[in-house]
Amino acid sequence: MSPPSSTHPDPTAGEPGRAASTPAAHSTSAAVPTRPRRTTAQSDIHETILHPGNVRINVQGAFIVSDEPTTPRSDDYEHDPRDIRLPNHTAVVSHVAVDARNPLTIGGSLAKLVYFSREPEESSLGGRLNFLKFETDRIDSCIEFMRKLQADYRRQNGSAPEELCVMATGGGAFKFYDKIREALGVEVIREDEMECLIIGLDFFITEIPDEVFTYREESPMDFIPYPPQPPSIYPYLLVNIGSGVSMVKVSGPRQYERIGGTSLGGGTLWGLLSLLTGARNFDDMLKLAEKGDNSTVDLLVGDIYGAGYNKIGLKSTHIASSFGKVYKMKCAAEREAEDGCNGDHYSEHDHVPGSSELPHPPAKFRSEDISRSLLYAVSNNIGQIAYLHAEKHNLEKIYFGGSFIGGHAQTMHTLSYAIRFWSKGSKQAYFLRHEGYLGAVGAFLKRQPRNWGRRGSFEGR
Amino acid sequence: MSPPSSTHPDPTAGEPGRAASTPAAHSTSAAVPTRPRRTTAQSDIHETILHPGNVRINVQGAFIVSDEPTTPRSDDYEHDPRDIRLPNHTAVVSHVAVDARNPLTIGGSLAKLVYFSREPEESSLGGRLNFLKFETDRIDSCIEFMRKLQADYRRQNGSAPEELCVMATGGGAFKFYDKIREALGVEVIREDEMECLIIGLDFFITEIPDEVFTYREESPMDFIPYPPQPPSIYPYLLVNIGSGVSMVKVSGPRQYERIGGTSLGGGTLWGLLSLLTGARNFDDMLKLAEKGDNSTVDLLVGDIYGAGYNKIGLKSTHIASSFGKVYKMKCAAEREAEDGCNGDHYSEHDHVPGSSELPHPPAKFRSEDISRSLLYAVSNNIGQIAYLHAEKHNLEKIYFGGSFIGGHAQTMHTLSYAIRFWSKGSKQAYFLRHEGYLGAVGAFLKRQPRNWGRRGSFEGR
Repeated sequence: MSPPSSTHPDPTAGEPGRAASTPAAHSTSAAVPTRPRRTTAQSDIHETILHPGNVRINVQGAFIVSDEPTTPRSDDYEHDPRDIRLPNHTAVVSHVAVDARNPLTIGGSLAKLVYFSREPEESSLGGRLNFLKFETDRIDSCIEFMRKLQADYRRQNGSAPEELCVMATGGGAFKFYDKIREALGVEVIREDEMECLIIGLDFFITEIPDEVFTYREESPMDFIPYPPQPPSIYPYLLVNIGSGVSMVKVSGPRQYERIGGTSLGGGTLWGLLSLLTGARNFDDMLKLAEKGDNSTVDLLVGDIYGAGYNKIGLKSTHIASSFGKVYKMKCAAEREAEDGCNGDHYSEHDHVPGSSELPHPPAKFRSEDISRSLLYAVSNNIGQIAYLHAEKHNLEKIYFGGSFIGGHAQTMHTLSYAIRFWSKGSKQAYFLRHEGYLGAVGAFLKRQPRNWGRRGSFEGR
Repeated sequence: MSPPSSTHPDPTAGEPGRAASTPAAHSTSAAVPTRPRRTTAQSDIHETILHPGNVRINVQGAFIVSDEPTTPRSDDYEHDPRDIRLPNHTAVVSHVAVDARNPLTIGGSLAKLVYFSREPEESSLGGRLNFLKFETDRIDSCIEFMRKLQADYRRQNGSAPEELCVMATGGGAFKFYDKIREALGVEVIREDEMECLIIGLDFFITEIPDEVFTYREESPMDFIPYPPQPPSIYPYLLVNIGSGVSMVKVSGPRQYERIGGTSLGGGTLWGLLSLLTGARNFDDMLKLAEKGDNSTVDLLVGDIYGAGYNKIGLKSTHIASSFGKVYKMKCAAEREAEDGCNGDHYSEHDHVPGSSELPHPPAKFRSEDISRSLLYAVSNNIGQIAYLHAEKHNLEKIYFGGSFIGGHAQTMHTLSYAIRFWSKGSKQAYFLRHEGYLGAVGAFLKRQPRNWGRRGSFEGR
């Protein structure tokens, strides 16, 4: 575990904020009275102790930074290089936010940490939002990191240990939260997962320039204009892809409904590829997929008909059956093996341990091709289901969030293509640079006061 | 190859039919003039030679038989035990129909053969439709079988070899058709695949009692009333599951449109399971699935939240991520192996031949559990996509066809459950006892005259 160095930007220093009942200082709403931006630090710290998480974050002029994070590199976490500068936020921030899942049962998910820090240079105003992710297997590192944030907070604010609180979201990581509570002696406030996702997404769409983009091969990151046009961003569909997939219709601020989902998500891709390819982590799997040729394992329309099936509008390169070539080729390989043609008989080494002693027969497929085929299958499928739900609920904009995407070009290409193909161009897929942090940011912002934010995206209407 | 025995029912004898331009004798339409049922056999044989396939099949009083087929048992084919008796059909039938796919590229698909035969007992009137399937690997057996039918036909009708013709459908099995043409010296008439599927399905729904059923665990085969109520069976959705899946909206007789599909079908299940389990054929895979427990590999909602996620209406047993437990458990097993805890280090025997030399790491999953998980994943996914397309096009009835189902209870249960779950009970899944023969029967019936059939299901409107 590598805790943040002592030169790490102070995550908590700055001017104190105010409680939720006070109208926001930086709201764009003319009807809301402004308040003086500088208040007595001590009284606000007290307020924060009573109402942890109720500080308002001033996002006026927020932008994504291009400089490297100042946290030391570590095997325990990855610091997202796209911190968000908040040049006008000066108040003390007494909370960090974590988005985690039950580390005992879920494979391959990541814990996300979002916290505020002041700029290291005294001359710089404001601070920044930091985005870190930890493998759930290294959850102790995450706690250790939070302990360091807490120490910094205490040193700079000289307050009681209770005052830094942890806003938590994600799926039932109860034991993890108990651990945090125990290790840090702080309160852990749990927030609803789905609600945090939506708050986070609304924030990124509404407040952060150069965050949301469309993907095309010829223009992989086409940012949508800022501020968004039209100003009303609703209704839209959020497709959140983690281990599984949730599809959420959002009709207005904090007005949402889970309308669908699929169990075929990142967990399926990672699980099957870890069985089929020997790749040990997601990055390796995606690298394999980039080098693969799915036509060696997928059955294409052209394989069946020689050309396209024009009568029903299917191109020859359309995938008719994912992995549709495997069974037949497998059988042929096995017959060869049994006939002794290549001496590749089963041996006890081919048995899959624990798999009911069934032999694991010889295969003739490249890991690269299998990886690409499965990436296509999962992404295409999510794209089609997302389109159908959007169609049913008359939603034109489809935002994709969640760690599955990870900025991976093939994944975004397949999702975008599927949406365009199925909707005949009438619907559009949108991606985010912070796609994996919707829940964590949402938890971080969850207790904002009403009428907060320059575009009113956090009004609790 | 075991050709049909000499005691095999004559596939072709009987009274001759008439050409397509003649109004049907047995139409229920009062407006259509009837014609005498007995005509000169010789003239009709001549007609048949000129217009092969144009004979009308009299389906009045048709029913599914319960006696065993009289074809000898063989490893080369499987004779479906549910022949259809046609007690009132007496004409010569000069064609057989085959539904096949390109045997060179498609793995695991089956060639289907449908032919007419007279009853063996002289006293029995009419004849029956026979349903046979051949693995595409044994396509020569299929040709040999047809050669025997041809010989029987010649012996009984004493006519020129040209007169038995083959109606063919399915995906681009050009080489197979060339082979038939060469081996039998007959004409092979190709018919559009999608159109044959629809004609076949219309026939089964409209003309055959005890053919279409709904599935529930407590009542696995609940036949729909016959004749169908309401009499108009349109519009409906056909979901045809073979290697891939096609979803076809049917608005009226021969009025159809492919509105969707998914590449995640039978080929995906069979392909992945042949790589993951060592099962060598579909039956073995389904047997494995029956004994499996998917909760060892799938991530359930209860695994994440401890209970259901009530706020968004998800039960604890809902599958959040198919194979969602695998990656994590796999990583843990690998770390153990690397730490030397169980001495289960990689060896060269763990390499998957041809797979870019990536090691195939130790697994801890049962083939049974993997099979059940993947069967659930594929079936659930098809069910959801079918529901969404049915919803979009306002179709209440969803018919599932294709070899994938194969009368397998778990598959039908999952498909039915998915349709009920997603449609909140407003839509219904229907299955067929001859689900694998829609295309072959459609090709067999393709050239029926207008206004034919007791319920008019073959009108070429």
